[in-house]
Amino acid sequence: MTTKSVAELLSEDVKLQDVTVKGWVRTFRANRFIALNDGSTINNIQCVVDFENFEEALLKRITTGAAIEVMGELVESQGKGQSVEIQVKSIEIHGDSDPEAYPIQPKKHTFEFLRENAHLRTRTNTFSAVMRLRSSLSFAIHKYFNDNGFYYMHTPIITGSDAEGAGEMFRVTGLDPKNPPLNEDGEIDYKQDFFGKETNLTVSGQLEAETYAMSLGKVYTFGPTFRAENSNTSRHLAEFWMIEPEVAFMDLAGNMDLAEDFMKSVLSYVLKHNREDLEFLDKRLQEEEKKLPQAQRSPMNLIDKIKFVVDNNFKRVSYTEAIEILRNSKPNKKKKFNYIIEEWGADLQSEHERFLVEKHFKCPVILFDYPANIKAFYMRLNEDGKTVRAMDILFPGIGEMVGGSQREERLDVLKEKMVALDIPEEELWWYLDLRKYGTAVHSGFGLGFERLVMFTTGMGNIRDVIPYPRTPQNAEF
Amino acid sequence: MTTKSVAELLSEDVKLQDVTVKGWVRTFRANRFIALNDGSTINNIQCVVDFENFEEALLKRITTGAAIEVMGELVESQGKGQSVEIQVKSIEIHGDSDPEAYPIQPKKHTFEFLRENAHLRTRTNTFSAVMRLRSSLSFAIHKYFNDNGFYYMHTPIITGSDAEGAGEMFRVTGLDPKNPPLNEDGEIDYKQDFFGKETNLTVSGQLEAETYAMSLGKVYTFGPTFRAENSNTSRHLAEFWMIEPEVAFMDLAGNMDLAEDFMKSVLSYVLKHNREDLEFLDKRLQEEEKKLPQAQRSPMNLIDKIKFVVDNNFKRVSYTEAIEILRNSKPNKKKKFNYIIEEWGADLQSEHERFLVEKHFKCPVILFDYPANIKAFYMRLNEDGKTVRAMDILFPGIGEMVGGSQREERLDVLKEKMVALDIPEEELWWYLDLRKYGTAVHSGFGLGFERLVMFTTGMGNIRDVIPYPRTPQNAEF
Repeated sequence: MTTKSVAELLSEDVKLQDVTVKGWVRTFRANRFIALNDGSTINNIQCVVDFENFEEALLKRITTGAAIEVMGELVESQGKGQSVEIQVKSIEIHGDSDPEAYPIQPKKHTFEFLRENAHLRTRTNTFSAVMRLRSSLSFAIHKYFNDNGFYYMHTPIITGSDAEGAGEMFRVTGLDPKNPPLNEDGEIDYKQDFFGKETNLTVSGQLEAETYAMSLGKVYTFGPTFRAENSNTSRHLAEFWMIEPEVAFMDLAGNMDLAEDFMKSVLSYVLKHNREDLEFLDKRLQEEEKKLPQAQRSPMNLIDKIKFVVDNNFKRVSYTEAIEILRNSKPNKKKKFNYIIEEWGADLQSEHERFLVEKHFKCPVILFDYPANIKAFYMRLNEDGKTVRAMDILFPGIGEMVGGSQREERLDVLKEKMVALDIPEEELWWYLDLRKYGTAVHSGFGLGFERLVMFTTGMGNIRDVIPYPRTPQNAEF
Repeated sequence: MTTKSVAELLSEDVKLQDVTVKGWVRTFRANRFIALNDGSTINNIQCVVDFENFEEALLKRITTGAAIEVMGELVESQGKGQSVEIQVKSIEIHGDSDPEAYPIQPKKHTFEFLRENAHLRTRTNTFSAVMRLRSSLSFAIHKYFNDNGFYYMHTPIITGSDAEGAGEMFRVTGLDPKNPPLNEDGEIDYKQDFFGKETNLTVSGQLEAETYAMSLGKVYTFGPTFRAENSNTSRHLAEFWMIEPEVAFMDLAGNMDLAEDFMKSVLSYVLKHNREDLEFLDKRLQEEEKKLPQAQRSPMNLIDKIKFVVDNNFKRVSYTEAIEILRNSKPNKKKKFNYIIEEWGADLQSEHERFLVEKHFKCPVILFDYPANIKAFYMRLNEDGKTVRAMDILFPGIGEMVGGSQREERLDVLKEKMVALDIPEEELWWYLDLRKYGTAVHSGFGLGFERLVMFTTGMGNIRDVIPYPRTPQNAEF
């Protein structure tokens, strides 16, 4: 008699064999049908109990959430909805679950309630599906890069640099918080701190990834990044995971090709490997949206939307073209946008991005060649002297999914830019070294992993796609 | 004419074709032979220049570290050491490298020097090989778990809990460092900090991983962890990466099986996929050790040592047996140990671990069933009431590679232990919930990733196996 996972049992061809399975009770119906789940699949295995053969005291302990071990015979199912079931011979209770106290009842819970019980929420179908998909997407990402000759690189989390410029940073310190040492000027003496200087949590591994691209050729990061911004929205986390590939000798066109191929490959992977979870989440979303007025519903269902991205070319549009389109658009002329687009140089808001993706092009869009002054210092200045080789990839329903650029490889131009933006050379001497010794065209992009998980699962709140979200006033668990 | 990587070119069967390759000059010999590397392999491709056909000004710019693009014909090599080479037709210089200023000269540099130039050190054979292996090991880890039905889980980096107990923590804060807000008691008012409480950098994702194991069945983490310990040694980092699998319904014996199978699988992967890098590092280590007296040299060379682990069973030895062996050992009797083992209950030092692994058993050893009072609160108490179901896996040359245990699944026993150790229940209410609702036997372990990279690469200093090491007084780059 072998112990098997529910996923294994449900995919068994051979019937009529003795099996053991361990998991948690989802429901126990009519003193007869146990729906047992062990996390290996969204599906439960039905365990049929002949209650006359079991003590009532035991049967009473088979409650939602209880951990049990079931031994029995795997047979073809008599009922609908499953091909096999277990005719139970014996049951062992591993851990009880008091039905009065157990928070995860077999009924619909709000996501807010489940966030407060984030340690138990993967015991629901929705969150187990989301987290299996999150895991599968992670693997698809590593596999894509590994298959394509990229090296995975762990960039530092604690950084002494605050020049990354992507946002507000958290300070990391070992100093006495109440009586920090002061220097002669009366300022905090960070020389006495653990690292001998002020340190923060990284906002991006890009600059370090560039150092490795300029020797190993193709690298990527996949690690946590941080923003100390007081944004209490459904789209922001203080701690989130980011993927940042960086490639030597690759220009912006190559960068677009890479990003598009990467996104399609990763999404194809989950279409192939996570079908049942996607179908569950697809149905969930449709039911959710039934409550909304027609106009607010998604134009495509979840799986179709993913397939659409996989099957269609991303539309490549310059910033300048996009501004023209937006300026002449109905919502701009009728002043329906909160920010009216009046002239070239305007920063695009998510309402504009969504208009381009969802109304105008109706497909993923790569915007490129942005005005230099709304983009980061390290982006390659074009010959026109006013735009940079930046790109953003916009997805339906999500907005910006990827941000990237060709990097400024010319020492003099980079230095000028740093002077203009008050970025001290001493802090980025090593970054400048890359332009002194064997510099070359190179490019890369960043992808917020949680955005990708939201897109793939159809979840509307970023707090629901990461195990333990960190947000203002919340670092529970 | 297609652009190919050096790795692709060196594995080409078809000869006599026009190719383009881009990379960095390692050496330029006799105004004729360029050794070009692009990071895709430890090997360089030889590019043969007929100097009479090129301008001298161009040839002068072909210096170590310069980024160049070579176009030419791929032909069978006339010289030794490579099967193919490129007969160069044209060269384009992408980025010069001033030979007077470039730090990475074609000569032996000390690792200390290279640490100060960590942004350039992957331009050397040794560090490119180490970092390719690091990447390959990472992928092998993800692949192993994915193939075996585990879900990858991102546990939080910023934690509000300080009960993990694995070591000193770094504080994460957004408060004004000079004038932090105080509460009525004159203490720092962390309610006004970003997360509304005191937060730190995680020392382990285990407790959170347990929550997911108890719903998804088999999970693992692979993420950064932190120790604010002032240990300036060749074996400690303030920031390092850890792998922590956690499995429901698995006891300590299963945990040992998993850890052994996992280690063997991951090492087999690099033996198969990273042969050339391993051979280079193997040779490097042998040359390094030639300088040492015979007694201090490794008994096995690098690849043999890895193979030995793959091919041999790990010896499983109880703590109690180990103490007997150590007590009766020569170095104990002759008082050669710094810490003499006198009685049961003593904590083992690395000198004892190394004796067991390297002198006594001469193979990887799994020690298990340690005294409860030298191990963590969450470890499963044995029926003897004095030992816990802990295990440490000891490797030759490295010492402890893995530490794990079966977890205490009994609510009452766990609570008692927490009371005894002054761990507040309020802080770990969610951890206790796992024992209230559907508790079950479960186990897991932690593996310090850099230890594994050290073992696999033969590098002696942990600072040399992570891109940008964080140690006391050092957070450069």
